Amino acid sequence: MFSHEQRIYSKNMDESKLKEGSCKYHMIGGDGPNSYAQNSEYQKQLLVSAEELIHELIDKHLDLENPPFDPQNTFKIADFGCSIGPNAFFAIENIIAAIVNKYKSNQNKNPNHPIPEFQIFFNDLVDNDFNTLFTNLPTARKYFVAGVPGSFHGRLFPKSTLHFAHCSTALHWLSRVPEAVAKRGSTAWNKGKIHYSGAGEEVKEAYAGQYREDMEVFLNARGEELVDGGLMVLVLIGFRDGVLCSDSSIGGVFDILISCLQDLANMGKISEEKVDSFNLPFYYPSPSELKGLIEANGLFNIERMAELGAPMRRNPDAQVLTSHLRAVIEGLIEEQFGDGIVEELFTIYLDRFAKSPALLDDRCWKETNYFVFLKRKPSFPIAEPLL
Amino acid sequence: MFSHEQRIYSKNMDESKLKEGSCKYHMIGGDGPNSYAQNSEYQKQLLVSAEELIHELIDKHLDLENPPFDPQNTFKIADFGCSIGPNAFFAIENIIAAIVNKYKSNQNKNPNHPIPEFQIFFNDLVDNDFNTLFTNLPTARKYFVAGVPGSFHGRLFPKSTLHFAHCSTALHWLSRVPEAVAKRGSTAWNKGKIHYSGAGEEVKEAYAGQYREDMEVFLNARGEELVDGGLMVLVLIGFRDGVLCSDSSIGGVFDILISCLQDLANMGKISEEKVDSFNLPFYYPSPSELKGLIEANGLFNIERMAELGAPMRRNPDAQVLTSHLRAVIEGLIEEQFGDGIVEELFTIYLDRFAKSPALLDDRCWKETNYFVFLKRKPSFPIAEPLL
Repeated sequence: MFSHEQRIYSKNMDESKLKEGSCKYHMIGGDGPNSYAQNSEYQKQLLVSAEELIHELIDKHLDLENPPFDPQNTFKIADFGCSIGPNAFFAIENIIAAIVNKYKSNQNKNPNHPIPEFQIFFNDLVDNDFNTLFTNLPTARKYFVAGVPGSFHGRLFPKSTLHFAHCSTALHWLSRVPEAVAKRGSTAWNKGKIHYSGAGEEVKEAYAGQYREDMEVFLNARGEELVDGGLMVLVLIGFRDGVLCSDSSIGGVFDILISCLQDLANMGKISEEKVDSFNLPFYYPSPSELKGLIEANGLFNIERMAELGAPMRRNPDAQVLTSHLRAVIEGLIEEQFGDGIVEELFTIYLDRFAKSPALLDDRCWKETNYFVFLKRKPSFPIAEPLL
Repeated sequence: MFSHEQRIYSKNMDESKLKEGSCKYHMIGGDGPNSYAQNSEYQKQLLVSAEELIHELIDKHLDLENPPFDPQNTFKIADFGCSIGPNAFFAIENIIAAIVNKYKSNQNKNPNHPIPEFQIFFNDLVDNDFNTLFTNLPTARKYFVAGVPGSFHGRLFPKSTLHFAHCSTALHWLSRVPEAVAKRGSTAWNKGKIHYSGAGEEVKEAYAGQYREDMEVFLNARGEELVDGGLMVLVLIGFRDGVLCSDSSIGGVFDILISCLQDLANMGKISEEKVDSFNLPFYYPSPSELKGLIEANGLFNIERMAELGAPMRRNPDAQVLTSHLRAVIEGLIEEQFGDGIVEELFTIYLDRFAKSPALLDDRCWKETNYFVFLKRKPSFPIAEPLL
């Protein structure tokens, strides 16, 4: 269930324009049993759910009459939060197929119009395992490739150079844990917890404030990078208004994790101080909350928001789900507690998780996976007709 | 003296348009004592020699009236064979400084013209250590970055999307060892040697033929990728016409290397068969030979060819030079003989090299380092005036 924690951010990420932060986290690289590559089936299923929607919406909203989409230009697509493959390749190939269809259908009107060349930019944090990403690239691909290191909470591309942006199951990662939450004595100090799930209003508000700030930075950066009429697909995880994270399996997993950490602290294997200052940099916005942020930002039209299906709810397996969690948060754990406790932590975790059948009950799966399709407004808005 | 062997190619590189070859070689990554990063001072000195020339020639040949160089466009530069830094960063920053100067001087005529944004593409083979490259990126850089994996003996970028190409001390790497050279029974079989240095005419011609083929592929690919009027700087190592590789320290180093390999074969530590089929994929063209190939290709005007100074000839140290050689060819050795003999090979090599003072004599330094500045001809050549 936690396999959707796709990207790992520094708590102290530098969001300045052209500089990576001091990011120490990354998805588990390589192809081993704990690797992200072997533990990202959930994300893949979300991409499959989004597949048809993407075809329909590209067909409807890709405006080939708009000069930046002249087929003589290279069509440039960026995947933000690509990790090390193979889901990113799947998503990109689906997007390319939809775009090629659109250009081909346009050839009925303009038989001499070529299909553009494609250049794909795979982005993730500077300490992502790009070596593995590049080694995994599909050999039969029909596009030119580049890897772009750096935080998507900031500019990564020159202005007006992208035609399409894609970001799937990555935007629930905050650029950092809100400062107040880890600070002893602050009203939002989150002692005894590692997330806003089940915490007081101050903690929740600190997280929400960080998310608002991060989304504003993200939308402004993509707004500058995309051409007028450029498209953006976001696939997100959140909770509908009124649904509490603490009532969900996600909250349940956090509860088990903190209990394991506290046990390790009681055994003297990690310091209580470090447990108290540990918080997970994840935020799960409701669709209406995200809609409000996009509208307030003002650079994009929301062409569609839609819920996606709920993948991987059949026959959940404690070992598989523990591996998923580990593939995602091992970096965070090592950063806070060192690498000496990782094995023991996940051994205790697996044992405790396996004894919590309630968490595998359908009624616990309360998060919603959703899809947002955005179109960059023209930089110089077209005047509204007077009548 | 061998530190200039900068890039490592597969012997069986697939040169198809969008596919990396089965490249198993790479520069030694990381920052350790045997790493390329710690053993590339020679290359750095060549870049310093080229610094002023680049400023002069960019000022003279960068045509800002040409539409692709409109400052509203992103200025795109690719470094081919970047390895893992820091020389590539040095070279790129010098090129950017020269280009910015040119745009600034143009502001005297057009005060409202902006300076373009820069996007830099660092290219090397797919198994180059891009993770280290990205970690080493200068934090205060004023450009957007992307890494591009793949062989420069083939297309890497969409058509007409680069404004400037740079390739330093990399083009003496062949895309592969010519087949005939490693083939028992062929007239060009190079038994008892590992290079054309000191070998017969057939061997030399097989190497030269491979180089002609590789340069044609390289120039055609860059010709498609560069915009009309796009610029390209090559920094190369070669021998003037009539100077023999076998009379030089490079040839001397190859002689020591083959003698060490033969000793290891005599001790039964590696097979004689493997020594016989081992050849180094390096070719050192004379300036006139390269000039002929560029003219025959026909896509570029040669704006300048110039010799660069001869760096690192003072106080050569056997240990340092052995480390340089190792940083470059360790991958080739491992590919052919496995990684079990690397330590022993370079221990024997160092001992033997230290006992060959003649190789450190100035008279042995016979290679010439040179610089070529090219400009992409217009795709539709401007008609010659009739009178």
